[in-house]
Amino acid sequence: MEQFSVSFFEENFKQYIERNKDVFSKVHAMNAYYRSIVGTLINDHLNKNAEIVRRIRNLEEAYNNVKSEQ
Amino acid sequence: MEQFSVSFFEENFKQYIERNKDVFSKVHAMNAYYRSIVGTLINDHLNKNAEIVRRIRNLEEAYNNVKSEQ
Repeated sequence: MEQFSVSFFEENFKQYIERNKDVFSKVHAMNAYYRSIVGTLINDHLNKNAEIVRRIRNLEEAYNNVKSEQ
Repeated sequence: MEQFSVSFFEENFKQYIERNKDVFSKVHAMNAYYRSIVGTLINDHLNKNAEIVRRIRNLEEAYNNVKSEQ
């Protein structure tokens, strides 16, 4: 699976939700994961801004996909 | 106050925490606000990627400042 793709982030969201299900509701786990990933992506000064924005857009799309799943 | 500056986001975080204190803990409110702002910023196609990344970095800095306050 391609790193930083939509499906990559979808899988990571699901794993994070599963690992934290005893302490966080689904949406709280998703928001916590989202924040930590954005914080990491924007501190990556090796990548161009266009690539950073592309990755965050993929993260946002994955967030919306996983959130709407039952 | 300059829009999208660190102090702009700090103020918005504090207002969001205050408005949601009956339903969200501080950190959950902050993560929810952070997610919604990033989602908005990256969908702004009027701005250059460099400006989007600058705004998100300010948001991240404000997040860390407000989170560490008692």
